[in-house]
Amino acid sequence: MRAVVFRGGKLKYEPTYEANSTVDHIAVRVLKAGICETDLQLIQGYMGFSGVLGHEFVGVAESGEYEGQRVVGEINCSCHQCETCRTGRANHCPYRTVIGILNHDGAFADRVWVPEANLHPIPDTVTDDEAVFVEPLAAAFQIGDQLDLRQFESVVVLGDGRLGNLCAKVLHAAGKQPTVVGKHLAKLSRLEQLGIKTELLSDVALSKCVDLVVDCTGSASGLTTAMDLVRPRGTIVLKTTTATEHGPNLAQVVIDEITLVGSRCGPFPKAIRALETDSVDVTSLITSRFPLEDAIHAFEVAQQKDQLKVMLDVA
Amino acid sequence: MRAVVFRGGKLKYEPTYEANSTVDHIAVRVLKAGICETDLQLIQGYMGFSGVLGHEFVGVAESGEYEGQRVVGEINCSCHQCETCRTGRANHCPYRTVIGILNHDGAFADRVWVPEANLHPIPDTVTDDEAVFVEPLAAAFQIGDQLDLRQFESVVVLGDGRLGNLCAKVLHAAGKQPTVVGKHLAKLSRLEQLGIKTELLSDVALSKCVDLVVDCTGSASGLTTAMDLVRPRGTIVLKTTTATEHGPNLAQVVIDEITLVGSRCGPFPKAIRALETDSVDVTSLITSRFPLEDAIHAFEVAQQKDQLKVMLDVA
Repeated sequence: MRAVVFRGGKLKYEPTYEANSTVDHIAVRVLKAGICETDLQLIQGYMGFSGVLGHEFVGVAESGEYEGQRVVGEINCSCHQCETCRTGRANHCPYRTVIGILNHDGAFADRVWVPEANLHPIPDTVTDDEAVFVEPLAAAFQIGDQLDLRQFESVVVLGDGRLGNLCAKVLHAAGKQPTVVGKHLAKLSRLEQLGIKTELLSDVALSKCVDLVVDCTGSASGLTTAMDLVRPRGTIVLKTTTATEHGPNLAQVVIDEITLVGSRCGPFPKAIRALETDSVDVTSLITSRFPLEDAIHAFEVAQQKDQLKVMLDVA
Repeated sequence: MRAVVFRGGKLKYEPTYEANSTVDHIAVRVLKAGICETDLQLIQGYMGFSGVLGHEFVGVAESGEYEGQRVVGEINCSCHQCETCRTGRANHCPYRTVIGILNHDGAFADRVWVPEANLHPIPDTVTDDEAVFVEPLAAAFQIGDQLDLRQFESVVVLGDGRLGNLCAKVLHAAGKQPTVVGKHLAKLSRLEQLGIKTELLSDVALSKCVDLVVDCTGSASGLTTAMDLVRPRGTIVLKTTTATEHGPNLAQVVIDEITLVGSRCGPFPKAIRALETDSVDVTSLITSRFPLEDAIHAFEVAQQKDQLKVMLDVA
């Protein structure tokens, strides 16, 4: 099958990739997939990944309960038997594979193999484009699952990229008035048009007065800025993972008694429901589209500062 | 007066230091003082401090409400007028000085000047030696003020030094069964004798299964070890501040959705009460004593791995 493969430090489009199919999993014929910040980190060496990339996708299940239906797939493929799984933290199963990220071929291919338990059918009213956003949108909803948002008055989302945009929209839909702080006027004005406050990073007073800062910068320097924005005893949600060797010195976390909450994958049902009820706009994030064959070029484009979501049309 | 001064990167004993007395503050005639991990970091350049060191002390107030009484002093000297102070976070006042740490001469001297509001009288049943531990003991109590300890089953205190020892004892007194993980058999066996479980770092399985890890290592590598010990969605309390440029990459905090809580100064009244009721042993931590004049040597000794609390007899 066709696949976009990262191997030996190189990204390649392979027209005749031999699929690592798994009989235990459901083959999903991929319709569309999205390039994510994590994909850009993976090709920098993050996680030491090797295989087919891609973990944001919508496709058609070829067997099982949802045969013939459009589905999206949760990316953590867990054992469901260990202590971690049995105590309600299956997304953290130590024996898990992660689609397109950890020992599991991903969705930038004609087919991706997904455990049946990970699949969620997509309602007819949700388009293919929208469905590709379920995975990152769920990650944005995870913030509200981890924290009681009522305790925060002032909220800053740091980063005007893909995830920052979605986090701001989800927080806004939850009744918060987040300010998105970013570097790119064009990306910020998209949010302004939706009634979300924005500010250029260069204009922001680093005055340590924000209750909650969500770091979606995808950059190692994001946390340093977040520490300068958040008030003493405030909270930083860390969404950024990088392939860099070091992070910042955390003395300020101690001195200011900051709470730092790592946040990763989130609840698919909430994301699907938000798309079904049109409570969060996602498709305006799509800035480019490429056929799967042009994935290498699509990755180059995805790294450009003016881009938000780059879509791969697979089928 | 006599004073131990850190200036221009050098630690010096000065027999005729000209005191930076403040009319607004109460002069406290220092009886005893303790050398803390933070002091050892300060002479490595942490905080860029310049002046008289020392923030763990007991002395006699020379004026004010407690004139003639033994007192200890909270170290954060706040404005009590700004937004941060008025909203109950005076320890984080952006205009604060910090005794012996930030723009405020400390207690390794004949006298230290302390705002009257920071003073706490010491009950007669608490000895001078014990009273020196009020400040670090309060820092250990801060963990229980920040977190609901009932939510944690398994607890590891990382580091068998001064603060690790105190944190373990406070957590133990609070009904937890902490395991202290350290590098020094002699320090660990002191804790074993008090009924506190210990383990050598080299013997510990880094199996990500601990609910709460308290990093008291005072070392930049402590957080890395903590991230390998704590379970997914577990909590790390960060007590360590270092003068190093970088910290570890925090991708694991995101992947494992760890909550990291910075923790600094704590409630003096709880610490004084614990000493008054003998619920926490502190004096067994004293491994050496020196007169103020020998402070330079005392600092050298405090850096030796077999030492816990090094005391300076001032008066």
